[in-house]
Amino acid sequence: MVSDPTSEILVDLNCDLGEGYGVWRLTDDHALLTMVSSANIACGFHAGDASIMREMCHYAVANNVRIGAHVGYQDLAGFGRREWGGEVARLAADILYQLGALAAIAQAEGGEVSYVKPHGALYHQALTNREIAEAVVTATRALHSELAMMVMTPSVLATVATEQGVRVIVEAFADRAYASSAALLPRVQPGAVISDAESVANRALDLALGQPITDIKGRSFTLHPDSVCIHSDTPNAVAIVEATHQKLRAHGVQVTSQRTTRPQ
Amino acid sequence: MVSDPTSEILVDLNCDLGEGYGVWRLTDDHALLTMVSSANIACGFHAGDASIMREMCHYAVANNVRIGAHVGYQDLAGFGRREWGGEVARLAADILYQLGALAAIAQAEGGEVSYVKPHGALYHQALTNREIAEAVVTATRALHSELAMMVMTPSVLATVATEQGVRVIVEAFADRAYASSAALLPRVQPGAVISDAESVANRALDLALGQPITDIKGRSFTLHPDSVCIHSDTPNAVAIVEATHQKLRAHGVQVTSQRTTRPQ
Amino acid sequence: MVSDPTSEILVDLNCDLGEGYGVWRLTDDHALLTMVSSANIACGFHAGDASIMREMCHYAVANNVRIGAHVGYQDLAGFGRREWGGEVARLAADILYQLGALAAIAQAEGGEVSYVKPHGALYHQALTNREIAEAVVTATRALHSELAMMVMTPSVLATVATEQGVRVIVEAFADRAYASSAALLPRVQPGAVISDAESVANRALDLALGQPITDIKGRSFTLHPDSVCIHSDTPNAVAIVEATHQKLRAHGVQVTSQRTTRPQ
Amino acid sequence: MVSDPTSEILVDLNCDLGEGYGVWRLTDDHALLTMVSSANIACGFHAGDASIMREMCHYAVANNVRIGAHVGYQDLAGFGRREWGGEVARLAADILYQLGALAAIAQAEGGEVSYVKPHGALYHQALTNREIAEAVVTATRALHSELAMMVMTPSVLATVATEQGVRVIVEAFADRAYASSAALLPRVQPGAVISDAESVANRALDLALGQPITDIKGRSFTLHPDSVCIHSDTPNAVAIVEATHQKLRAHGVQVTSQRTTRPQ
Repeated sequence: MVSDPTSEILVDLNCDLGEGYGVWRLTDDHALLTMVSSANIACGFHAGDASIMREMCHYAVANNVRIGAHVGYQDLAGFGRREWGGEVARLAADILYQLGALAAIAQAEGGEVSYVKPHGALYHQALTNREIAEAVVTATRALHSELAMMVMTPSVLATVATEQGVRVIVEAFADRAYASSAALLPRVQPGAVISDAESVANRALDLALGQPITDIKGRSFTLHPDSVCIHSDTPNAVAIVEATHQKLRAHGVQVTSQRTTRPQ
Repeated sequence: MVSDPTSEILVDLNCDLGEGYGVWRLTDDHALLTMVSSANIACGFHAGDASIMREMCHYAVANNVRIGAHVGYQDLAGFGRREWGGEVARLAADILYQLGALAAIAQAEGGEVSYVKPHGALYHQALTNREIAEAVVTATRALHSELAMMVMTPSVLATVATEQGVRVIVEAFADRAYASSAALLPRVQPGAVISDAESVANRALDLALGQPITDIKGRSFTLHPDSVCIHSDTPNAVAIVEATHQKLRAHGVQVTSQRTTRPQ
Repeated sequence: MVSDPTSEILVDLNCDLGEGYGVWRLTDDHALLTMVSSANIACGFHAGDASIMREMCHYAVANNVRIGAHVGYQDLAGFGRREWGGEVARLAADILYQLGALAAIAQAEGGEVSYVKPHGALYHQALTNREIAEAVVTATRALHSELAMMVMTPSVLATVATEQGVRVIVEAFADRAYASSAALLPRVQPGAVISDAESVANRALDLALGQPITDIKGRSFTLHPDSVCIHSDTPNAVAIVEATHQKLRAHGVQVTSQRTTRPQ
Repeated sequence: MVSDPTSEILVDLNCDLGEGYGVWRLTDDHALLTMVSSANIACGFHAGDASIMREMCHYAVANNVRIGAHVGYQDLAGFGRREWGGEVARLAADILYQLGALAAIAQAEGGEVSYVKPHGALYHQALTNREIAEAVVTATRALHSELAMMVMTPSVLATVATEQGVRVIVEAFADRAYASSAALLPRVQPGAVISDAESVANRALDLALGQPITDIKGRSFTLHPDSVCIHSDTPNAVAIVEATHQKLRAHGVQVTSQRTTRPQ
């Protein structure tokens, strides 16, 4: 199962970064940027501001970390976790606004935005709501025809992206319990967030190696993600990502945003 | 003085547009977009939101109106008219954020951002404060090397732009009193805003033709602007711009954002 | 049915006022304050700011207009018309915050807050959602035990208010079509908003006199409101309220926030 | 100099609390609320939101901590540290709005607002600018005639408060270097913030006992504060306050918001 030197296993590790605002910070973004290979950078609507975005892009470029636009609902007070009750036409414009803002800042720092990953309630609503998924995909394509969409599958968002010719970066979650192979356990339910570093690291390794993991009811299933997500807003996020990073390397898995050779 | 058919006088007419937010509007943007040749579109910091920006870009493209980024301080409550007491490093990022957002939206509507014009207190502070002027110019160049800067001269902002290779679109104000040939009378002083449509139209014509105008003390001076600005936040802005538009055409002056042949 | 000189009919007329923000205004608040008897003053969350609130309270006191707190969701971008997807515990605190802010400003201007009327999506959700209605009522009682609740009936909000000992000011809408005697036609449906001044005035008179009105399907029903609401965000709101005011007086109905003698 | 059992020394210890927003926190407010005797609670303009304010009031009441309104400029992005360039008339309304909001929330939690302490740039500008100081004092008096003003002396704010009959709670800073006996060293200068817990504790003790302290140039001077402030936004704020609390008790000084018997 361990990789041999001639066919190394590669996995992308993504984290939500830059989710502060003004004087506030949610995690140690700098430490995380030395370990992840993809940074989902908040774009100022649910979190993040122009200065934080610039700082994140600067360090992402310096650490060769892929830049993603972590777009959300305009809701600093609710951190983008409140569902949208507005017009979808306005939503598409809001997303495009965020994408353009990050693209300009990334470019000024010598980088570029490679993918889009919705945040919070926008992510969850786009998994199942076609109208919202279309707003996300339409805005994504409007910015740049090469932009990819990072999202779990199966999902309406992944389907719409594929339909419209947007490449999907399939992600799986190492620190969230699954209700089934196709859905996360809602965050408010007990056991939804896995906070033990060793458990997350093991789960990330299984996901990277194409090994089965189990859902909340103990049922086994296998995912083949392009990218493994670890949340950055848990209190010990840095320790979790460190443990994961070490575990992966100890098993010969390289953390990189280059396209992986997925073990099937 | 009137143009002859073989050497038509051209003048650019610019207005601040899209300065609403959510349900609020400040003027009849649609009517103005049928008459001006350059639209300074608010970018969400002092006014404007993503949906309004998209609507403005859509109609600007439809009316063949040049798109400018009307960037401002992050101050919806004060309409960007309050002076900045923050760090200039943050300011440059804030401006870049706005430019990128508008650029993405303009592109999605089939247009592009051609120039930058600062708003309110940012405009006024950049006229004299080199550090602030540099933040504006640096952000402008970071977005696109061909972006121009619209500003009155002489001014520190025009100087810094020129030093850094950014083309300056020199503007003059048809509806504001001048304290001298080089400075506007502050908005709070009596007589600062000219609200009589006929007076504004005559002044715009003089500016377009390279004829002298007078300052608040009656001293005569001649400006040679590339663009004439009329404010859109006066109660009768639409009537003023209509009167100006008619007056200019009646005297053979064409309103266009194409480079003018300036009568010297 | 028409009032005789010895027992004059009284009706309260309420409008949403102060729904601007910074430089923006939605209507001519000053003109409306000379005609209505109750002012629902926006408290800064969906619209309004401290300076506008102070101005509204000042003119309300000067015109002997009753002051109500028009509380809403924290959503300037969406004018409080987007449904709430957040925690109800946070909502109660948000409402209390708004009530306290207006109470302090009203007091500084020599007035006082007499009632609470929720705005937009908060109003609509509180009509049917008990948890949200309880948040509104709890916050209302926490400010002042004598505060009343202005709302249409039958509704969950009116029921909860009554259960908790909060007096209900029953309102009806003169400028909105009813789907039935108990529900408005949603604003997005054709015919939902009545914008003809004469029609609104007649409807207001019928409501004041206890005469039947008809719903969108032509079915007749009779309401006995304590207060008649006319919206202030229609383009001709001032003309509508003027016509209504004249019509009422011409029929001997006095516009006042004093408790009405309701014709049954 | 050390207190004898029959005349115990009392000192008030105040901290800025509740300076988070939405998901963000700046310090461990709960821990600090078990040690301080006065809580300067952020009111939503520079930091704080309705839910955090309610939580702070709840724990302040539970811990018998005096509640103060920590009012600031409307500037979440700049944490209220950016100078105000707006109209003072608007400022007074903004302050009153914050005071009313906190007053309602404090009352709902069984407490009350006892004093006002401006934050950040508002504090610093009110120390020297009479117009701004008057806005703060006017708003304070408008809420409640018994409200006190917490501020350092000598200062324009203290003078204006006294002139208008507002009681002054004189504060001194245990964790900030003084440029002279009358002014703090600006925060941006080296050595301005004292972050060594033992040093702060000793300085707090000297202030409590009426012993001299030294300014940045080593000059000795004696202050007689009613209250000692320790900032809560330093990384080790909790450890600093703990060390101070212990030091004070070890020397027989009681931390309380009851009027102190000042050693002269």
